[in-house]
Amino acid sequence: MYNHADLKDLVDKAIINLSYNTEAGKLIDPVKYILSIGGKRLRPVLALMACNLFSDKIDEAVIPATGLEVFHNFTLVHDDIMDQAPVRRNFPTVHSKWNINQAVLSGDVMAFIANDCFLQAPPRCISKVFRVFNKAAIEVCVGQQLDIDFEKAIIVSEDEYLRMIELKTAVLLAASAKIGAIIGGADDKDSELLYEFGRNLGLAFQIQDDLLDIYGDIKVFGKIPGGDIISNKKTFLLVKALEIASGEQHKRLQEQFAMKEFDPETKVKKVIDLYDQLNIKAVTENIANDYINTAFSLLDKIGAVKERKKELAQITCSLKGRNR
Amino acid sequence: MYNHADLKDLVDKAIINLSYNTEAGKLIDPVKYILSIGGKRLRPVLALMACNLFSDKIDEAVIPATGLEVFHNFTLVHDDIMDQAPVRRNFPTVHSKWNINQAVLSGDVMAFIANDCFLQAPPRCISKVFRVFNKAAIEVCVGQQLDIDFEKAIIVSEDEYLRMIELKTAVLLAASAKIGAIIGGADDKDSELLYEFGRNLGLAFQIQDDLLDIYGDIKVFGKIPGGDIISNKKTFLLVKALEIASGEQHKRLQEQFAMKEFDPETKVKKVIDLYDQLNIKAVTENIANDYINTAFSLLDKIGAVKERKKELAQITCSLKGRNR
Repeated sequence: MYNHADLKDLVDKAIINLSYNTEAGKLIDPVKYILSIGGKRLRPVLALMACNLFSDKIDEAVIPATGLEVFHNFTLVHDDIMDQAPVRRNFPTVHSKWNINQAVLSGDVMAFIANDCFLQAPPRCISKVFRVFNKAAIEVCVGQQLDIDFEKAIIVSEDEYLRMIELKTAVLLAASAKIGAIIGGADDKDSELLYEFGRNLGLAFQIQDDLLDIYGDIKVFGKIPGGDIISNKKTFLLVKALEIASGEQHKRLQEQFAMKEFDPETKVKKVIDLYDQLNIKAVTENIANDYINTAFSLLDKIGAVKERKKELAQITCSLKGRNR
Repeated sequence: MYNHADLKDLVDKAIINLSYNTEAGKLIDPVKYILSIGGKRLRPVLALMACNLFSDKIDEAVIPATGLEVFHNFTLVHDDIMDQAPVRRNFPTVHSKWNINQAVLSGDVMAFIANDCFLQAPPRCISKVFRVFNKAAIEVCVGQQLDIDFEKAIIVSEDEYLRMIELKTAVLLAASAKIGAIIGGADDKDSELLYEFGRNLGLAFQIQDDLLDIYGDIKVFGKIPGGDIISNKKTFLLVKALEIASGEQHKRLQEQFAMKEFDPETKVKKVIDLYDQLNIKAVTENIANDYINTAFSLLDKIGAVKERKKELAQITCSLKGRNR
């Protein structure tokens, strides 16, 4: 059985060894760049862990798993254009380092490089793997659209918000786990359990991301606290706060997010004060923990021996009290 | 056997009947828009004609053929962003009707809608079809990169230019014909002949597009003549003219394309005068005709009865003396 570090290592090596059409070097430079500036490689690692539940021949899953990382980075390159984000993982984003046109085009080619990786899945399951991936890919686009739509919306309900992060983040983790399971030879029931496991993990992960924006340790999380508040981003915390706040608190919260001009530090402080009054941190942590616990129960139901589930249990566990 | 009009009709209907994930309506509106504003549907029609050479069961090729049109329109949406083009087929481009972010995201989802179409190819040839498509898709991105690079280049050789249009335009026509042939049950030799047939057709088509920009009938071609000259676009005519011009003519041609400020009408007139002195129209027509003739010889070699080749011969023929 492979551990987390082994698998991340396999993925990192596969990324370095990806072969490209290099006839136009400028096209591929940004691809190599975005893939080289790190990240947790969570999606391919999850796929390989799911595969390793059922099979020791994880070699045949490595390239398709890498496709998930390439696709994920394709979405980052294009999302960063849409968000006008200057920095990603402490490095300049592709469109700031090059330009928007280059980020559009180099992003595009990544979608087809990802396709190439899925086409290297074992012939017995190539269509199945591709279908699972492609459904998720379309859903990720839908999720990004909802995220953009929500920026302009005044009120977003908790359900709407959860559906958005499900599409934008969770379905790709779900598809990753399911694709790994399929390549590992899992039956339909176990493949579906892994999809649900990944989906719950993804929801917990994104809700925690929202929490860490405010309550994360800057030294560990690597971002200045309150960025989402300053940029008026709809987060689970805001959506939940607007749902449970009443009267004066509701009014004050809305005021903070309606201001055209403000001192960032004061705004962050005032919003956190309101969140604290409403106990938003604990409420949000509880919801994230519910998803984590559901992920654990799903893992229990999967038809593999407990010993085999160690790494997936560990990754789920690490989400509890996650600080980066 | 199906004729051109039948096949275009089948494609138009399949495009109307495409099923979408409509959870975020704003994502799909631009997709429906760009697919509804016409175009010749050349790629899917070519695929269906190639299929129909070998099989009467063209039904199973209709959705994959439609995928080629969706992919082609994906490239148009993103290319129009990069070219800052306000108009496409006499309608506003997606990024002018909506905005750049919407054009990036709605373009992206089209890449995955195209994937979905290829996943509906007959199971016996799904991987083969997908591999042919995906290789072409990556090459189209490389071609667009070379096109962008050439904008800034002072001198582009004829070979470099031909390779660029081969990648940007011809390989997708080539892949379309090959994919149709594969679905129709052609053997490897005939599939490859159809690839080469489509590639030659594509090269002729693009060179003629360059010709029509200057010598096309505005009423038929639908564009103001000389647009490429005004925008300093590298075309086959310019590349060829710079290659054969010497001394004074070469200098005057370079001067026209080096000017920062100019009267468009005068510039177009002066460049056309130089082209006329160099006999560029006839030289270019000859080269386009060479590709058309090669396409005819390739068609002859394909293992299907002559009667079956009528429509592909007709489409090749119509390129001779094409005026739109």
